[in-house]
Amino acid sequence: MSQPASRTTELSVNAHMIGQQGSAQSLNTPALVLDLDAFERNLTRMMEHCHAVGLGLRPHAKTHKSVEIARRQMSAGAVGICVAKLGEAEVMGRGGIDSVLITSPVVKTDGIRRLIALNGLIPDLMVTIDSLDNAQALARAAAPEQGGPRPLKVIVDLDIGLHRTGIAPGEGAAELAEFAAASPGLKFMGLQAYAGHLMHVADYAERKTKSLEAMAQLAAMREMLRERSISCEILTGGGTGTWDIDHEAGVLTDLQAGSYLFMDTEYNAVAQKDGAAQAFETSLTIQTTVVSANTPGIATTDAGIKSMATDQKSFVIRSGAPDGTAYFLFGDEQGGLAFPDKDTGLAPGSVLNLETPHCDPTVNLYDCYHVVKDGALVDVWPVDTRGKSA
Amino acid sequence: MSQPASRTTELSVNAHMIGQQGSAQSLNTPALVLDLDAFERNLTRMMEHCHAVGLGLRPHAKTHKSVEIARRQMSAGAVGICVAKLGEAEVMGRGGIDSVLITSPVVKTDGIRRLIALNGLIPDLMVTIDSLDNAQALARAAAPEQGGPRPLKVIVDLDIGLHRTGIAPGEGAAELAEFAAASPGLKFMGLQAYAGHLMHVADYAERKTKSLEAMAQLAAMREMLRERSISCEILTGGGTGTWDIDHEAGVLTDLQAGSYLFMDTEYNAVAQKDGAAQAFETSLTIQTTVVSANTPGIATTDAGIKSMATDQKSFVIRSGAPDGTAYFLFGDEQGGLAFPDKDTGLAPGSVLNLETPHCDPTVNLYDCYHVVKDGALVDVWPVDTRGKSA
Repeated sequence: MSQPASRTTELSVNAHMIGQQGSAQSLNTPALVLDLDAFERNLTRMMEHCHAVGLGLRPHAKTHKSVEIARRQMSAGAVGICVAKLGEAEVMGRGGIDSVLITSPVVKTDGIRRLIALNGLIPDLMVTIDSLDNAQALARAAAPEQGGPRPLKVIVDLDIGLHRTGIAPGEGAAELAEFAAASPGLKFMGLQAYAGHLMHVADYAERKTKSLEAMAQLAAMREMLRERSISCEILTGGGTGTWDIDHEAGVLTDLQAGSYLFMDTEYNAVAQKDGAAQAFETSLTIQTTVVSANTPGIATTDAGIKSMATDQKSFVIRSGAPDGTAYFLFGDEQGGLAFPDKDTGLAPGSVLNLETPHCDPTVNLYDCYHVVKDGALVDVWPVDTRGKSA
Repeated sequence: MSQPASRTTELSVNAHMIGQQGSAQSLNTPALVLDLDAFERNLTRMMEHCHAVGLGLRPHAKTHKSVEIARRQMSAGAVGICVAKLGEAEVMGRGGIDSVLITSPVVKTDGIRRLIALNGLIPDLMVTIDSLDNAQALARAAAPEQGGPRPLKVIVDLDIGLHRTGIAPGEGAAELAEFAAASPGLKFMGLQAYAGHLMHVADYAERKTKSLEAMAQLAAMREMLRERSISCEILTGGGTGTWDIDHEAGVLTDLQAGSYLFMDTEYNAVAQKDGAAQAFETSLTIQTTVVSANTPGIATTDAGIKSMATDQKSFVIRSGAPDGTAYFLFGDEQGGLAFPDKDTGLAPGSVLNLETPHCDPTVNLYDCYHVVKDGALVDVWPVDTRGKSA
């Protein structure tokens, strides 16, 4: 399923190293490195969990942005994938992914035109709505007399506390669902509820209590619709932070987790605080190289602001540096190493691997994954929807 | 000089709007928007300044990452361009830019192989060195018996206080220059000195004093080399923060400014504090659209962590929102608007333009510039070296 050589060669200056022994530590850097074995264990672990608790898995591809990885998730048994943006859905559709949910609203005139066109390409395309104005605009564009290929599937996005997107549970949400159910151009599929504000609550018990309370709002809304004879085929939500909690509410039909594939500093912090053994491994790292080391106690690497997410300023070195070495941003193109004392150091050419600070926006900086196994580069996978935020 | 239509269509979902009246405010968003008139005034202003004070302009293309813009800078009279990374130089070379200085060291074995190959493509390729080990490695790879096309031009990078790259002025630096001057595979061109730590010093007088002190170190080093019969054809450095200061030291031959083309929140803050009229205009903005507005006092846009630099958390709305509205990050894909009171708001579909918080890493998130003039989209320019950090 990897890309043909001509494509990977364009994508990475390292493609010629595929298959070379030891090449996993000789990459031109900075490079996004994916440990294939750990990645596959994470993929399997979440799928097995969903099967065990009777949930579908609708993984969020805003994390990985890769057609190759989406295909692997579908092959493993996912019911479909999620994307955040229309531009991502277009690429996934062209890549042959046949079930795609866009988890935020498409509101612009030109965007709605693109959405209707995409509904002809993706058999099971879905989009969330959270306002009557938007639903009406979609209904007009998708009306049968417009000659579209099929009704446009919509999911009402419910705001269960994050206040980012979604409509508050209650009468307004019910009316929105009724409008969608009654529109010939639309097909009402169900509800989405994402408690993004709870994903990183450090205390497991608190996270669980609050998540189950949030899910109770979704269950109440489902009942409210049932009383109006509107049934929900899909109740979708949840994430990596609540992966082992959400099913207990007994309301979701599928789980939207994304970061579980890679893990990152933010999710590792939550997982470690839980006290239990971590369910998902850190499969994704940033490889960087020391390029300058002329000042005692510090050294300069080739990975700075352009090579990692900087919304959280917490950087963890996983390998390649003496214990106690701190990583800091040293401008757009460089990182810095602060050694525990002035007699410690690393020479230019030394290779380090960093934990991904926040995986989604870090992946969005790179054109490809360098897939490694047993110390060798074995493949290069494109980050197909990189930058497709519109 | 813009790309053919087939290329721009791939690059932007908005390419079909080129030439349409009012299209500058109807883009699928988030979109990087470049005001062509302001951009051209900035381009001209800096070139005229350099001519007036007798400096060459060697603008830093790590800011814009665009072959089209590099060509325009060369056409306007630049002596060459700078890039931060080898991967950027490769793209600029393939784009026909014939003078490129790589401003940080290339230390990996595979990188040195790429560098020597690139020296066959770019007639005036230069790279900085700051250690004897690295200089020796380059000398071996570029030795005449290796059959390379021409000697590799090198510039000794001097650390004048930032401690990021460069070698301290003094005996070690002199020995490094001597080694380069004596190596048959290398051609010693001169010195680089970049006082990155002074670019954003808020007080103009303090910035000037410190910059001139830093430049004095460069002048002293030039004299030290002159005493050893080594002459410097190039003395390169400076930036947008010290553009009107650096020439007063009388040592630089050329100026490496980059951000002057676009300006951003960081540089605007420095420029405004100077008290004088701002020399360079804000030509680059991020266009974003409200996608959800169900909670009183706030609204959600489509531009979040993946659509702007987040190393500084300062966001400035330039147009489209009521006075007193604050912009905040609302996750990877969304931004938030906090209105001055709960009765103020913006409906979904409303369009805003934000100042670029930090231009270099923001540009690095986008595939293209949407070039606008008189309210219409007039062209789409690729961000050719986006992500080319290796």
